[in-house]
Amino acid sequence: MNNFEFYNPVKICFGKGEIAKLSKLVPKGANVMLTYGGGSIKKNGVYDQVITALKGYNIIEFNGIEANPHYETLMKGVALAKAHKIDFLLAVGGGSVLDGTKFIAAAALWEGSDPWEILSRRSEFHVEKALPIGTVLTLPATGSEMNGNSVVTRWETHDKLAFDSEHVMPVFSILDPEVVFSLPQIQVANGIVDAFAHVMEQYLTYPVNAPIQDRFAESILITLIEEGPKVLANRTDYESAANFMWAATMALNGLIGAGVPQDWATHTIGHELTAFHGIDHGQTLCIILPGIMNLKRETKKEKILQYGERVWKITEGSTNERIDATIKKTVGFFESVGIKTKLADYGVGSDIIVKVVDRFTKRGIKGIGERGDLTIADVAEILELQLK
Amino acid sequence: MNNFEFYNPVKICFGKGEIAKLSKLVPKGANVMLTYGGGSIKKNGVYDQVITALKGYNIIEFNGIEANPHYETLMKGVALAKAHKIDFLLAVGGGSVLDGTKFIAAAALWEGSDPWEILSRRSEFHVEKALPIGTVLTLPATGSEMNGNSVVTRWETHDKLAFDSEHVMPVFSILDPEVVFSLPQIQVANGIVDAFAHVMEQYLTYPVNAPIQDRFAESILITLIEEGPKVLANRTDYESAANFMWAATMALNGLIGAGVPQDWATHTIGHELTAFHGIDHGQTLCIILPGIMNLKRETKKEKILQYGERVWKITEGSTNERIDATIKKTVGFFESVGIKTKLADYGVGSDIIVKVVDRFTKRGIKGIGERGDLTIADVAEILELQLK
Repeated sequence: MNNFEFYNPVKICFGKGEIAKLSKLVPKGANVMLTYGGGSIKKNGVYDQVITALKGYNIIEFNGIEANPHYETLMKGVALAKAHKIDFLLAVGGGSVLDGTKFIAAAALWEGSDPWEILSRRSEFHVEKALPIGTVLTLPATGSEMNGNSVVTRWETHDKLAFDSEHVMPVFSILDPEVVFSLPQIQVANGIVDAFAHVMEQYLTYPVNAPIQDRFAESILITLIEEGPKVLANRTDYESAANFMWAATMALNGLIGAGVPQDWATHTIGHELTAFHGIDHGQTLCIILPGIMNLKRETKKEKILQYGERVWKITEGSTNERIDATIKKTVGFFESVGIKTKLADYGVGSDIIVKVVDRFTKRGIKGIGERGDLTIADVAEILELQLK
Repeated sequence: MNNFEFYNPVKICFGKGEIAKLSKLVPKGANVMLTYGGGSIKKNGVYDQVITALKGYNIIEFNGIEANPHYETLMKGVALAKAHKIDFLLAVGGGSVLDGTKFIAAAALWEGSDPWEILSRRSEFHVEKALPIGTVLTLPATGSEMNGNSVVTRWETHDKLAFDSEHVMPVFSILDPEVVFSLPQIQVANGIVDAFAHVMEQYLTYPVNAPIQDRFAESILITLIEEGPKVLANRTDYESAANFMWAATMALNGLIGAGVPQDWATHTIGHELTAFHGIDHGQTLCIILPGIMNLKRETKKEKILQYGERVWKITEGSTNERIDATIKKTVGFFESVGIKTKLADYGVGSDIIVKVVDRFTKRGIKGIGERGDLTIADVAEILELQLK
């Protein structure tokens, strides 16, 4: 096991009816900015539950945070927060609303020349303060409810960039599995594969003798494989919704990634598919991950075999046969929840290769992945493999 | 899954060399009280590492915190902390030093008539403030480094009582696996079975469809079974020491117990064996747990079978045969690490039954365990079963 720091002070309130606890969680007398997306929370009853719970608070609303939240949109939120002297942000939504709200929280107190630096120059500038955030999660997927990560897109330049800071970790997050009941099928499917890919980014690397982290990761994968289809088949199955929701949170709260190497090449490449073609984040991961498993089958061999054996019970055949069978099982799982895994399925042709290569070259990327050895040439090959 | 709250803000610094980070973790200018036990930290080099890292700090030492820390001892620490206007406690030791320091932290700011109330009347009086604590763990076992629990013994009355509060959760805990290298064999063995029993108290109850919690619990059990003997066989095997240490922390930091029923009857009964006969805490758990599994085989049936199958690969035979085989495996594991499981092994006879029954009767205990149905008569039967 490698040395590590683990710190996660997010208070989780989990279960049906927990939204009513908001008045105990949001500081008394706070000027609250309620952030949300396109208004689905007004249809599924969550908005009403939140407003009822926060009776007596001074609330300003900022809505319209879109999927892959836009820098341009969020900067309007920053202006609104400043204008109303907001001192607490309550994000009610999925990963995009939460990520966007984290950016607003950091940008509102940013003392640099331009808040875009938070994203564009994250290696130089660290977020050292932010407005406090609470969340009510409406879509299990990204894990944003229990981490300090945020991904923001600058629409005018098609840049999709990330930052992270412990200062934007939510003070609390309310996870009521009943929010899953009214979700569209595609959002549930995207959530399942997103959480699955998060685990894989922290697990499918190389062994460092970390059995707790490995087995926890496999626990989450198995739970997603077992519970995900149940949620899709019966949206009002509370228990499966709860297990799916908790799995998605545990997939990216720092725990399974503590003390082990991490990959994140799937996300780095996948982000470009969203930036250029607007493909859903979860879908991009299902396109890229099998390509990486295929191309990096030698350096990832030990963990692919372990994953195949413990998660898919694949124990027969040569190393290459077992790896092939494991990739096939993984692709089969993605397809079984309704997510296609080839670029052609999304109407994307080979021109994407040049665009991504060009973008990565301009950014000066040498190598990504757990060994930093996944080159731009490898990225091109992975996209080629996944064309159709 | 049941509704739950999960909150654990302890920062973990894990790995060799991490003690040197103390100067970044302890607030600058703090009046630090360094608490420790009988002086083993002076032999194994930890004391020197701590003092070197804290050069320039104002440090008062309070040593002599014994195993099963005594209220009488700790109250001297409270007086010392008050006299020196201490504002940060640094506990360097195992579970007893950490638990004792938590009590000092709470008692130093206690506004009630008598700090004994923190333990004796915990259902009425909650700890709402405490001095901040940091820890350097020297013995993986109790999980005290990442929770708000504390157990204290009042020697004059043989009372061993617990309290818990989020205010005594350490601000940080440094976990350097190299501390394991110099531990006596019996302390390692006690640590392994203590962590094992902590998992069982939160796992071996009844199913509530919580697959993440179940599989995480099984992950920790399997890791302890695999890594524990390696640590005992080769004390300087850093990797095994690290895995044992992280397993013990994860066994009792709130995670596997979130949203599931919990038992704790083994600890409740075991504490009396320590209070009356001074038997090591870990040893008492190995005596009591098999008795509870045996007596409560019907109400715990589903989880015992699951545990037997997933952890010990027991899949053959009738329900009772599988339960017997599972108990036998569990006892065999305890014995394999050198911990005896019968009262006679510790020179304790049947008179203990009357003493424990009398104590529980005086406390007005009706029923303990996850269903509150383990009666005082059951306690007597469990002790009878475990006599020899």
